[in-house]
Amino acid sequence: MIPRYSRPEMTRIWEPENRFRIWFEIEAHACDAQAELGVIPKAAAKAVWEKGAFEVERIDEIERETRHDVIAFLTNLAEHVGEPARFVHQGMTSSDVLDTCLAVQLTQAADLLLADLDRLLAALKTRAHEHKDTVCIGRSHGIHAEPTTFGLKLAGHYAAFKRGRRRLEAAREEIATCAISGAVGTFANIDPYVEEYVAQQLGLKPEPISTQVIPRDRHAAFFAAMGVVASSIENLATEIRHLQRTEVREAEEYFAKGQKGSSAMPHKRNPILTENLTGLARTVRAAVTPALENVTLWHERDISHSSVERVFAPDATITLDFALTRLAGVVEKLLVYPDAMQANLDRLGGLVFSQRVLLALTQAGVSREDAYVLVQRNAMRVWQEGADFLTLLKADDDVTAKLDPATLEACFDPGYHTKHVGAIFERVFETD
Amino acid sequence: MIPRYSRPEMTRIWEPENRFRIWFEIEAHACDAQAELGVIPKAAAKAVWEKGAFEVERIDEIERETRHDVIAFLTNLAEHVGEPARFVHQGMTSSDVLDTCLAVQLTQAADLLLADLDRLLAALKTRAHEHKDTVCIGRSHGIHAEPTTFGLKLAGHYAAFKRGRRRLEAAREEIATCAISGAVGTFANIDPYVEEYVAQQLGLKPEPISTQVIPRDRHAAFFAAMGVVASSIENLATEIRHLQRTEVREAEEYFAKGQKGSSAMPHKRNPILTENLTGLARTVRAAVTPALENVTLWHERDISHSSVERVFAPDATITLDFALTRLAGVVEKLLVYPDAMQANLDRLGGLVFSQRVLLALTQAGVSREDAYVLVQRNAMRVWQEGADFLTLLKADDDVTAKLDPATLEACFDPGYHTKHVGAIFERVFETD
Amino acid sequence: MIPRYSRPEMTRIWEPENRFRIWFEIEAHACDAQAELGVIPKAAAKAVWEKGAFEVERIDEIERETRHDVIAFLTNLAEHVGEPARFVHQGMTSSDVLDTCLAVQLTQAADLLLADLDRLLAALKTRAHEHKDTVCIGRSHGIHAEPTTFGLKLAGHYAAFKRGRRRLEAAREEIATCAISGAVGTFANIDPYVEEYVAQQLGLKPEPISTQVIPRDRHAAFFAAMGVVASSIENLATEIRHLQRTEVREAEEYFAKGQKGSSAMPHKRNPILTENLTGLARTVRAAVTPALENVTLWHERDISHSSVERVFAPDATITLDFALTRLAGVVEKLLVYPDAMQANLDRLGGLVFSQRVLLALTQAGVSREDAYVLVQRNAMRVWQEGADFLTLLKADDDVTAKLDPATLEACFDPGYHTKHVGAIFERVFETD
Amino acid sequence: MIPRYSRPEMTRIWEPENRFRIWFEIEAHACDAQAELGVIPKAAAKAVWEKGAFEVERIDEIERETRHDVIAFLTNLAEHVGEPARFVHQGMTSSDVLDTCLAVQLTQAADLLLADLDRLLAALKTRAHEHKDTVCIGRSHGIHAEPTTFGLKLAGHYAAFKRGRRRLEAAREEIATCAISGAVGTFANIDPYVEEYVAQQLGLKPEPISTQVIPRDRHAAFFAAMGVVASSIENLATEIRHLQRTEVREAEEYFAKGQKGSSAMPHKRNPILTENLTGLARTVRAAVTPALENVTLWHERDISHSSVERVFAPDATITLDFALTRLAGVVEKLLVYPDAMQANLDRLGGLVFSQRVLLALTQAGVSREDAYVLVQRNAMRVWQEGADFLTLLKADDDVTAKLDPATLEACFDPGYHTKHVGAIFERVFETD
Repeated sequence: MIPRYSRPEMTRIWEPENRFRIWFEIEAHACDAQAELGVIPKAAAKAVWEKGAFEVERIDEIERETRHDVIAFLTNLAEHVGEPARFVHQGMTSSDVLDTCLAVQLTQAADLLLADLDRLLAALKTRAHEHKDTVCIGRSHGIHAEPTTFGLKLAGHYAAFKRGRRRLEAAREEIATCAISGAVGTFANIDPYVEEYVAQQLGLKPEPISTQVIPRDRHAAFFAAMGVVASSIENLATEIRHLQRTEVREAEEYFAKGQKGSSAMPHKRNPILTENLTGLARTVRAAVTPALENVTLWHERDISHSSVERVFAPDATITLDFALTRLAGVVEKLLVYPDAMQANLDRLGGLVFSQRVLLALTQAGVSREDAYVLVQRNAMRVWQEGADFLTLLKADDDVTAKLDPATLEACFDPGYHTKHVGAIFERVFETD
Repeated sequence: MIPRYSRPEMTRIWEPENRFRIWFEIEAHACDAQAELGVIPKAAAKAVWEKGAFEVERIDEIERETRHDVIAFLTNLAEHVGEPARFVHQGMTSSDVLDTCLAVQLTQAADLLLADLDRLLAALKTRAHEHKDTVCIGRSHGIHAEPTTFGLKLAGHYAAFKRGRRRLEAAREEIATCAISGAVGTFANIDPYVEEYVAQQLGLKPEPISTQVIPRDRHAAFFAAMGVVASSIENLATEIRHLQRTEVREAEEYFAKGQKGSSAMPHKRNPILTENLTGLARTVRAAVTPALENVTLWHERDISHSSVERVFAPDATITLDFALTRLAGVVEKLLVYPDAMQANLDRLGGLVFSQRVLLALTQAGVSREDAYVLVQRNAMRVWQEGADFLTLLKADDDVTAKLDPATLEACFDPGYHTKHVGAIFERVFETD
Repeated sequence: MIPRYSRPEMTRIWEPENRFRIWFEIEAHACDAQAELGVIPKAAAKAVWEKGAFEVERIDEIERETRHDVIAFLTNLAEHVGEPARFVHQGMTSSDVLDTCLAVQLTQAADLLLADLDRLLAALKTRAHEHKDTVCIGRSHGIHAEPTTFGLKLAGHYAAFKRGRRRLEAAREEIATCAISGAVGTFANIDPYVEEYVAQQLGLKPEPISTQVIPRDRHAAFFAAMGVVASSIENLATEIRHLQRTEVREAEEYFAKGQKGSSAMPHKRNPILTENLTGLARTVRAAVTPALENVTLWHERDISHSSVERVFAPDATITLDFALTRLAGVVEKLLVYPDAMQANLDRLGGLVFSQRVLLALTQAGVSREDAYVLVQRNAMRVWQEGADFLTLLKADDDVTAKLDPATLEACFDPGYHTKHVGAIFERVFETD
Repeated sequence: MIPRYSRPEMTRIWEPENRFRIWFEIEAHACDAQAELGVIPKAAAKAVWEKGAFEVERIDEIERETRHDVIAFLTNLAEHVGEPARFVHQGMTSSDVLDTCLAVQLTQAADLLLADLDRLLAALKTRAHEHKDTVCIGRSHGIHAEPTTFGLKLAGHYAAFKRGRRRLEAAREEIATCAISGAVGTFANIDPYVEEYVAQQLGLKPEPISTQVIPRDRHAAFFAAMGVVASSIENLATEIRHLQRTEVREAEEYFAKGQKGSSAMPHKRNPILTENLTGLARTVRAAVTPALENVTLWHERDISHSSVERVFAPDATITLDFALTRLAGVVEKLLVYPDAMQANLDRLGGLVFSQRVLLALTQAGVSREDAYVLVQRNAMRVWQEGADFLTLLKADDDVTAKLDPATLEACFDPGYHTKHVGAIFERVFETD
């Protein structure tokens, strides 16, 4: 919602101009349907389309008096349409307009978010393939584990965002419903045909059953889907922040020429974009709980959900749009340092190959428990003394009793760890 | 997690017995696959199935020493299997077992929740049809609006739980993946075939890309889907609590003979089950935020998610299972009072028909704005003086100048409001 | 953050003008302290105060190039101050300015919120005394329990907001700290005296230990205190919404003359302000979880908290300020209907006095268990048959065997229930 | 709640035995007060104390029939006390017992948590003093900034937990209230003296105004205070996890002899305790939102809060107790590596002194902007070429034109950064 974290493509959707434009279309399409049914004169419907107009400022002015936004809009509309305006909104209630409009806006927002995800997915796919075979250390618990490739890391995030995209797509389908069912959803004063007609014109589906409002579990599911995408953003942002740490420095956010990292310390190059994304993820997720609380309305409806949505429908979509775009930029321009990756890989004196030694011992007939003891006692000396793992193993009689030097050396081949990268890439990217 | 809010059907899934049983199956199936690949002897795989066994207490005992549950399990298993046990778990890491097991447990839990939802949906469908034409007042903002039927209310909740079911089904599909990919997910020490084989045996899909762990956005989506169902529970529970209010009393939770409503006030009949469900919904939803926080792991994995899941995977599924079952019981046995509904409907002196009068005036040529003023000024007198709305309208010259008495009277027909109930029911229930 | 839910008194605090004004004061006071220490020339400090100025637009312009807001500000400041500007910000880091400024802004915001609470407390106190003896039914579980007074209801909410005020006051004290400690909080390049001096000038306390940033548990506690106040708002709002229900209608939000309750149903008078407050409470609370997540920063600091605070520090304080003010207005002008309260009280045929009958039976020597059965069996007939409770009791031989008619009748005196109202009022209001 | 994350000291508080013990004391003290008032016979009160007893299993048995726990307890109590039992619970309602009991339990839990915090604070204080002068690099954004000391890091966390302790202490005071005010809090059937007397006996304060229940904003504030402590736990846990990273390795969790880091990779030493604490923090915080939702009750009370508290009052206090104790152990036994700290400090070729060079240039008459450019251009070469910062500066004519070699060299003195450590320690620890 604050300009700093907004893109005009998304804020436009939430501006009064777009909202009133959608209101107008709902009312005008409804008039067409009512005219077709013979409820109102065809000429009236035609007049609405032809003379219909509105001015945001004028509507605000009227609303200050009536304290009711839809009535203010209709009054302003009537100022343009004239006498036939009395046929507008017939049999409808404000919520028919408001909720259907929100459905259109959320659908527009979802389409933009899906496009954002496509850009991010494309960036991840490109960089993943670029670094498919760039070997680096895989870390569990922040501790060196076994070699992997940088491409695999990115492919994992690609798969996560792909899932996020599918969930958001499903949430978009769910949210795209139109309700024009009157005061408590009974269609008492309006034929269901109007709803069906307007829905079709706006690319929505008719809400099967509404109670003045579209049920809010749809919206909760939508915000939850955004929340999970936000968490995936935080996950990738955290990975990049880790890689940029001074002691790791395997990758860095692109650093522009004129940029200053710190006003006090001119040497700094900070991962501020991904740190920012970590915070933005929290901001997007903040909408999930209120959206879940919004599901419970009193009887056929109360209006407690409304203020929450006025704040979070724009804020969460705007922030997520901004965050996805920012992240796509970070990925596209990420500086990757394969040499540093190799240097870090070598840092542990070969410890990262401990599992292979364990397995080799097992295959040579040592029990798993004994093999574990053998490997661990040498590994702990590497930690404590900074020794070379292979050298220690070669000097351990219990080890050499089972494994000859050549077999031991073969355990220290990084290529062994990357032999299935191609197969994994096929799994991840095959469906595209 | 507390017995009070648990059913054995669900707690069983989370007991050590079931967990270790699944671990055993994962290991044993993996041995079969490894034997097929020629990595381990076929006899070893056979021995695992034939001699394999475990004791929960013994595993606990070993874990107290090793501080590692999977190692404790494998050690206990080896005590039964003997020498061939050294081929078990080869090339795998603990997480292969833990995460695949969690996938199986969550899938089992989801199946139970889906069955719970089916019972609830059946109850709502039955009661909705029973009261399809039971007229009652529809309320917006807690204020009488226009007539609806009690069946329509229930049909709306039916539709919400139907959507919840679909989302949970999708979440179940997403969570049902198997990862046996080794230390950082590279399959360095294990052929991807093992993962594919075990997945198939357990009714799961292979995780396309894992990093020692199955990515946690899957779990976040699962908990979020449960959270939305919980909110729908609160929504229906709140409806029932409202209907049972002393001043409304259109429906009541079933009240057993020996039951005491209050230790101090013997006259009380409190909606304690639905109040309880309101709280249980909060409890289920409490898992959503931690699940979203769990998505971010350091590099290939850290273990911060684990304690959260140890608590909330059981707690949220157990509580939701209990809540859905309790709610189904409430709906099945709900006491419904059509006479009270009619009495409440009559309470406002006909005010609830104000919109029809408004529309009738509009159709008689009065502008919407003028009609609104005419209707509102009479309506406000009903509020203030308790007068009869129709009587007032008949005495208002500005009204009678446009509408004759018969037309006015026709506006007060409740049947007018229920004419589309059948059509809505078709929309809601047609797909079943 | 959206104008609809904002008051200029609070938004002003968060506007760039105020922020840069505070930045200027921090820098200028720091110069004074540095001059006093002899680190910079006294003339330079004087020049900063005399020539110092800034323009929001110009700062924005520079920031677009440098991408660093504090550097942009300092550059703009230097354009006014000229050569002595090089002594500004010496030994400081951006966070010294940013975090101390946020402390000032949150303190200003807290002061406004405390004033809002004072207005609300005054309103509650006035209305509580006005209705100290207005008898109404007390309800547990939404079911009539025993008589209370409307004044007692309001006194309870008064006490809750009084506690909320105390917590907010404590949170305000906690947040009011100044950090000018340099790059990682070591005061390497700046004497602690500067921090102490600036703190004093700004009405803050020096932060005992900072790490470039003021620790974020202070902010988390502040947002949590606001969250609890928001929940108390929802609690009172819910009470009013309940009282305004058509079937209850014991109180109503003030309804202005020109106001329209519903565009479709002219008869409606909806509790839209308190429904709105219910939603606003959710919005304020939404900041609590991100604030708790913000506490964890990497090492001496990262910047993940910043975007969260840029959004929620304004949004939560602005929304809470608006909500408190709105609620004060609702309470001040609340329409209260004592006659309706009495009518509702009478509605249950005397059932609400069941406990007194129970106690009378006990005192007459009946065991508690037997007394409960006697009372409940008559109470249940009132529920089912709508009979009069006293009449039934008088016709129950088991009852009359123990209690004579006069004793029974005495049990039905409402005054009995309100005899301690004065004592409770003293407890609640005595400390004011 | 799960044994894995529980200590008997805390679970004991939440076991039925303790709960019923407290119930008994409440009832027995209330009898004393009632006897003193002459409401019940003194002999009856005496009999309650003398013959009063209960059995958990028997109460469970009765509850299965009555579905009401307090009635079940009273029935069981009566089985022991006999005839005088009819004077027990007179004028009271179940909530008087339940809510006062919860207050006692939460107070007991708070006392244990405060003791846990004391142990943690003691550990932090000891280790902070031990490493008061152990120089290490301070990091902002994960990037080396300027030197600090390891003692300062710990002192910062000490200060945070000290604040957490104060907040928890305040929350404990708030929660320690006693309500014995009858059905809707009017004291209709019980003299306020009983409440005052029981409160005093139990070390509580009388709740100034209750409505059958103690108002839930007190509990929300309590859970929020725990949530902030949990966040501080996560903050320190994250620091340790970072320090244990393979590339950093400045500190490590104590690693027991028999311990296995990974079933597959015998070389691993993982920070599993602090990772676990990260997750436990999320679990404790999960209670905050439901507690905030619990504040809103219908009218004088509903029971929606109850199930939430049955789950989270034990779970959150048990988990926080366990986490604090675990963290204290981690701090007490933390392995600290000063040599590694020094090695990391040296890693950036002196870049971490960039700010001093910047300030020296400024003091030598260079404008801040120009000085920044001079320093940054050399700093960037260190990043890119791995050069030595001091060497580069000495070779930069624009630099040497302003600063002679000795002045430049003096900028690279780590001691310069630690000169105020003593003063900061005084601030932090002086109040102890």
